[in-house]
Amino acid sequence: MLRIALLGAGRIGRMHARNLAAHPRTHLAGVFDIDTRAADDVAAEVGAMPFAELDPVLGDTSIDAVLIASSTDTHCDLIERSVGAGKAVLCEKPIDLDIDRVDRCWKVVSNAGRPVQIGFNRRFDPSHGALQAAVAAGEIGRLEAAVITSRDPAPPPYEYLLASGGIFRDMTIHDFDMARFVFGEEPVEVSAMGGNLFDAQAERAGDWDTAMVLLRMRSGALCHINCSRRCAYGYDQRVEAFGEQGMLASCNPTPNSLARHTAAGTSMRGPLHHFFIERYADSYLREINAFADTVETGAPPCPGFEDGRRALLLANAALEAAGTGKTVRIPD
Amino acid sequence: MLRIALLGAGRIGRMHARNLAAHPRTHLAGVFDIDTRAADDVAAEVGAMPFAELDPVLGDTSIDAVLIASSTDTHCDLIERSVGAGKAVLCEKPIDLDIDRVDRCWKVVSNAGRPVQIGFNRRFDPSHGALQAAVAAGEIGRLEAAVITSRDPAPPPYEYLLASGGIFRDMTIHDFDMARFVFGEEPVEVSAMGGNLFDAQAERAGDWDTAMVLLRMRSGALCHINCSRRCAYGYDQRVEAFGEQGMLASCNPTPNSLARHTAAGTSMRGPLHHFFIERYADSYLREINAFADTVETGAPPCPGFEDGRRALLLANAALEAAGTGKTVRIPD
Amino acid sequence: MLRIALLGAGRIGRMHARNLAAHPRTHLAGVFDIDTRAADDVAAEVGAMPFAELDPVLGDTSIDAVLIASSTDTHCDLIERSVGAGKAVLCEKPIDLDIDRVDRCWKVVSNAGRPVQIGFNRRFDPSHGALQAAVAAGEIGRLEAAVITSRDPAPPPYEYLLASGGIFRDMTIHDFDMARFVFGEEPVEVSAMGGNLFDAQAERAGDWDTAMVLLRMRSGALCHINCSRRCAYGYDQRVEAFGEQGMLASCNPTPNSLARHTAAGTSMRGPLHHFFIERYADSYLREINAFADTVETGAPPCPGFEDGRRALLLANAALEAAGTGKTVRIPD
Amino acid sequence: MLRIALLGAGRIGRMHARNLAAHPRTHLAGVFDIDTRAADDVAAEVGAMPFAELDPVLGDTSIDAVLIASSTDTHCDLIERSVGAGKAVLCEKPIDLDIDRVDRCWKVVSNAGRPVQIGFNRRFDPSHGALQAAVAAGEIGRLEAAVITSRDPAPPPYEYLLASGGIFRDMTIHDFDMARFVFGEEPVEVSAMGGNLFDAQAERAGDWDTAMVLLRMRSGALCHINCSRRCAYGYDQRVEAFGEQGMLASCNPTPNSLARHTAAGTSMRGPLHHFFIERYADSYLREINAFADTVETGAPPCPGFEDGRRALLLANAALEAAGTGKTVRIPD
Repeated sequence: MLRIALLGAGRIGRMHARNLAAHPRTHLAGVFDIDTRAADDVAAEVGAMPFAELDPVLGDTSIDAVLIASSTDTHCDLIERSVGAGKAVLCEKPIDLDIDRVDRCWKVVSNAGRPVQIGFNRRFDPSHGALQAAVAAGEIGRLEAAVITSRDPAPPPYEYLLASGGIFRDMTIHDFDMARFVFGEEPVEVSAMGGNLFDAQAERAGDWDTAMVLLRMRSGALCHINCSRRCAYGYDQRVEAFGEQGMLASCNPTPNSLARHTAAGTSMRGPLHHFFIERYADSYLREINAFADTVETGAPPCPGFEDGRRALLLANAALEAAGTGKTVRIPD
Repeated sequence: MLRIALLGAGRIGRMHARNLAAHPRTHLAGVFDIDTRAADDVAAEVGAMPFAELDPVLGDTSIDAVLIASSTDTHCDLIERSVGAGKAVLCEKPIDLDIDRVDRCWKVVSNAGRPVQIGFNRRFDPSHGALQAAVAAGEIGRLEAAVITSRDPAPPPYEYLLASGGIFRDMTIHDFDMARFVFGEEPVEVSAMGGNLFDAQAERAGDWDTAMVLLRMRSGALCHINCSRRCAYGYDQRVEAFGEQGMLASCNPTPNSLARHTAAGTSMRGPLHHFFIERYADSYLREINAFADTVETGAPPCPGFEDGRRALLLANAALEAAGTGKTVRIPD
Repeated sequence: MLRIALLGAGRIGRMHARNLAAHPRTHLAGVFDIDTRAADDVAAEVGAMPFAELDPVLGDTSIDAVLIASSTDTHCDLIERSVGAGKAVLCEKPIDLDIDRVDRCWKVVSNAGRPVQIGFNRRFDPSHGALQAAVAAGEIGRLEAAVITSRDPAPPPYEYLLASGGIFRDMTIHDFDMARFVFGEEPVEVSAMGGNLFDAQAERAGDWDTAMVLLRMRSGALCHINCSRRCAYGYDQRVEAFGEQGMLASCNPTPNSLARHTAAGTSMRGPLHHFFIERYADSYLREINAFADTVETGAPPCPGFEDGRRALLLANAALEAAGTGKTVRIPD
Repeated sequence: MLRIALLGAGRIGRMHARNLAAHPRTHLAGVFDIDTRAADDVAAEVGAMPFAELDPVLGDTSIDAVLIASSTDTHCDLIERSVGAGKAVLCEKPIDLDIDRVDRCWKVVSNAGRPVQIGFNRRFDPSHGALQAAVAAGEIGRLEAAVITSRDPAPPPYEYLLASGGIFRDMTIHDFDMARFVFGEEPVEVSAMGGNLFDAQAERAGDWDTAMVLLRMRSGALCHINCSRRCAYGYDQRVEAFGEQGMLASCNPTPNSLARHTAAGTSMRGPLHHFFIERYADSYLREINAFADTVETGAPPCPGFEDGRRALLLANAALEAAGTGKTVRIPD
C-alpha cells in the first residue's frame, strides 16, 4: 500500500484524490493546497487529512510519495522539494513552460534516487496502449507513418489560455508524447501551422485554436498531429499507425454500445465521451498502478522526467516552426 | 450472347428488362405482356421489340430463353409452354401458391431437358453469397445455428396482399430459401408465430404483418427467421451464421460510406437501401450471369425448380404451425 | 453506507465481495459460507470478517442487508431467514428451480416489509439499460418485435449441468427477464426448440446445449431468444428492439477500441469479453447502487421477487414447449 | 447518345472503353492508340472500331467528343488538336507536368467554345461527393480543418516513376484537387515532407514513397494530406472534414458487407478494394454522366481545365516546400 499525498486540489487534483482513495494499491495520506478551503473540501469528500502547509507533508516519513497536481509554475519547486524530502513523485504535465527551468530542476533531482513520473496519462489508455504494444511487437512491421487526432470539446477560459504556454505546450504536448511513445524513437524535424478559426480569445491571447504538425522521426518515418480546441461531437482522441504490413487504429470509445437505426440514419452511436476525465478514466487508474510498480520495484518511471523534457522541446520547436514557416530541427 | 425474351412488364419486369438490355452476356430479344401498353412502354425504354402475343415469342427459334416476371398465377403455365417450346427458363418466385400445381408443373417439364432457374436472387448477393461460401468452406466449422432478419420498408397494397398467398409464401419464402442455402441441408421441423401489429389491411386480408419462425435442420442445427412488412430505417436484410469456430454476419450495406459525427451522435451512416431493387441490384445482375452459365454449360440450374418447390413446402408448413401452435414436420 | 454481509463465497461470491469492499456506498461487514475455508479466503482478500455460522450474521443488528450468492437450493431458506432477521436481501438468480418452493417463500417474506432484489444484473448494463430507457421513452414508437442473442463462451462442467435445472432455467432465465424488461409487459405464449449440437455431457444430463425461443407478448408483439453454451468469439450478448419508428441495438462492447487493418481483413476488433464477470463488470456495480437506493429510500426493489418468479414461470413453460412441440400459454 | 472516341488504349483506357461501351448515354465510336495492336485489342473486346491514325478520328464529324487516356506528355497536344477539330474533351489527369505547357495549352483552347473536363474522378465517388455536398449545404457549419488519407496498394514500376513527375504531381495531385473540392476555396500556403521508407527505386528515381502535406486555405482553415505508395490492407482513400458543428467522414467501402467474428477477433471485414479501378468503379461511370451533361447542356465542365491547372500549381509548390523545408505561398 503506497501512502501518497496530493499536492493541489483543483479540478484534476480532485479527480486524483478520488482515484487514490479508492485504488486498492494506494492510501491517500493527505491533501495540500495553498487554497486551504480547496484542500479541506477535497479531503473531506474522500475522508483524507487536509494540510495547510507543505512542510508537515514533506516531513511526514510515513508518506512515501506525492502526486503534484498544482499549477504548472509550481511544478519544478514542488518536484525539487519533494525529491529532497525523499518522496517519489508523480507530477502532472507539463513539467514547466521554460526549458531552462526544466533543465535546472533535473540537475537538482536527477541524482537523488527518487523516481519522478510525468502525468502523460494517455500512455495508459487501454486502446492507445494496445496500439503501442502491437507496434512494438512488430505486428505491422516497420512503422512508416502515423496520424494523431486530438480535439478538445470547447476552448478553455481566457485566463487559462494566458497561463497555458499556448496550444503546443499545453495541449499538443500530450500528442508529442504520444508520437514518441508510438514510434519508440525521437523526432528530428518539425513543421507546423497554427490557425485562428473560432476562438477570438485565443487570438487575443496571441494563441491559436487549431494546429497541424508534421514530424520526421529519426528513422525517416513521418507523423502528423492535428489539434483543435473545439469539437462538437465530444472529445476526439485517435491514433492511426501505418506500417509495412498493416494499419492499427486506436478509435474513440463510446460511453455505451447502443446503436440507433431510424429513418434519419443507421448505426448511430451516442456522442463521444465529453472530455478527458470521462475518456481517460481508466488510464488515470492505470497510471497509478504504474507509479506504484515503479516505487515498489525501483524500476525507472515511464514516462519519466526526460519524457516530459523531450515533449517540451518538441512543443517549443513546433511553436517556432509555426511562427517562422520553416521546418525546425529538434535539439537533442 | 444469350437471346432472351421477357414475359411480364410490371415493376420487376421493367428492372429485368434494363438489366438484360445492358448485360454484356444477354440480348433482350423481346418483351411480352398481356397488357400490351406495358410491353410497349418497357420495350421502348430499352430499345427492344414488344410482343402482343406469346406464340410468336415461343415460336421464334432465335430466342434461347425466357425470363418469367408475370403474376404468380401464370408462372406454371408459362414455364410449361416455354419449356415445351424448347426455351430455357428463369422464373420469378414463387413458382405457384399451390403445391399440387407446382408438382404437376414439374411432371410436365422435368424431362424436357431445358433448365428452369427460380428467381431467389438473394443467393447472388455478394455478402450473403460470401457467407454461404465461407460456411461451405468450413471457415467456422460445423454450422450450429443461424438468425435471418428480413424486413420490408412498408406494407404492400391490400390487393397485393389478397393475391400474395400470405406473408409466409410471399415474403418469408425468400428466407426459407436462404436457410436452405446457408445450411446446405433440409429443415425437418418448423414452429412459427404470426402477429398483427400495425397493418389493419393485412389483418382484414387474413394475413399477418409480422412473423417469427424456428426451424430444426436435419443435422439438428436450429434456425430463426424474423420478418416484418415494415421497417422505418430501410430494407433490413441480414444473416448471422453461428458455427463451432465463430460467427459470420452478412450485414446491411449502406448506399455510401459517409459517416456523420455530431453532438446528436457519432458514426451515423445514412439510411439503408430503400427496398429490394436498390439493395439487390448486384444480385439481379449476378443472377443473370448464373443463368447464362447454366444455359451455356448445361449445368443444372441453381436455384432450380426443386428449390422453389422446397421453399413453398416450408412456407406451407410454417403457415400451418402459426395457425395451430404446433411444431410441424416438413414433408419430403 | 450500507453495511452488508455476503452469504456464499464461491466464484460469483468472490466477485461480489470485491465490489462490496470497493464500492463507495457499501461496507462489507462479513463473509459467510458453509465452506469455512472459502469464507476465510475471500474475507482475507478484501479485509472483511469471516463467519463460520449464519446466526451471528443474522443476529448482528449493525448489518443492514445480505447478498445471497450461495448455491441455488439454499436461496429460499436464506431469503426467509434473512428477511425474518430484518435484513434487506439481494439474491442471485434463480430464486429456486421449483416454482412451488418460490411461491411458498414469497408467502413467508412478502409481508415482512424488507426488500428482496433479484440478481438480474443485465438490467443494469449501460447499453441494455439505455436501450430499455429509449424504448420506454417512446424513441422508436410502439415496440413490435425483439431479438435477444445470448451465448456463453463454453459449456459448464457436467456437475454444474446436473444441478442447474437445465438451459432454460439456468441460462435463458436471464433472457426471459430481459424480454420482460425491454417490453415492459408479460409474455402470454412461448414456443421453443432445444438442440444437442456439441456438448455430449449436456445430452447425457438430459439437457440441451442450444435453444431457440419465440414469445408472444400480451400486446401481440413477438420476441425471439437464441442461446448457446458455446461461442468461439467470446461472450455474445445482444438485444435488438424493433419499433414502428426504428430499431435500437445493444451491441457487444469490446475490451478496447483498437482496430486492426491488414491484408487479412479490415476493421478487426479484438475478441469480445470472455464471460459475464468481464462483460458485466459495470452492471454488477450498478446493481449494488440500485440495491443501496432501494434500502435507503424504501422504494420497491427492481428487479424484485416477482420478477424472479415470472422468469422461472417462463423457463418452465419454454421447457414444456420444447419437450412437447406445442406453443404453451404462460400461467399468470 | 454521346458519340465518343477513346484516345489511348492502355490500362486505364481499357477501363474507359468498357464503361463507354456499356454506358446508356454514350456510344464508343472508336479507339485510337499509337500502338495499333493495343487499339485493335481494346476495340475488339468492346465491339468498337479501331483507328490507326488520329486524323480520321478528328475528321469524323459524327464523333462528338474524345476521352484522352494516353500518356501524360501527349495530353496537351491531343487537347489542342481535339478542341481544334470541334470535339468536347474529357482528359485524364494530370494535364501536363510542366505548368508553362499547361498555360500555353489553355491559351490555345480557352476560346474555342468546347468543354475540357479533367479526370479527377474522385469528385464523383458517392461518398466523397456526399461529404462535399453536406459541407456545401452547411451541415457541419464552417469548415475548419480536413484530413485526407490516400494510400496506394504498392509502388509502381521504376519506369513509371521516372515519367510520373514525382509523388506530388502524379499521386497527391488527386488529393490537392480533393482539398479544393471539399473546401470550395483555394489554398494559399503549403508545407510538406517527403520520406523514403520502403521503395529503393523511388529513391533511385529521386522521388519519395511517402509524403505528408499541410495546407492553409484562404479562409485560414487547415488541411492535412498523407500519401503512401504502399498499403498492405488495400487502397485506403478517406476524407475527414471537421466543422464547427461536427465531423463528416468519407470512410473506405468494403467489397462486401460480410463480417467475421472468431477467436482471433470480431467484426472483421474483408480487405479493402485493391486499387482505383475497383474502388472508384462507380465514380468513373458518374464522371461520364457529368461529361455527357456538360456536352448536352453547355454548362461549364467541372472539374475543368483550371482545376487541373490549380492542382498542378499545388503539386509544384508542395515539391518546393518538401525540398526547401519552407512553407511556400501558392501562386495565383
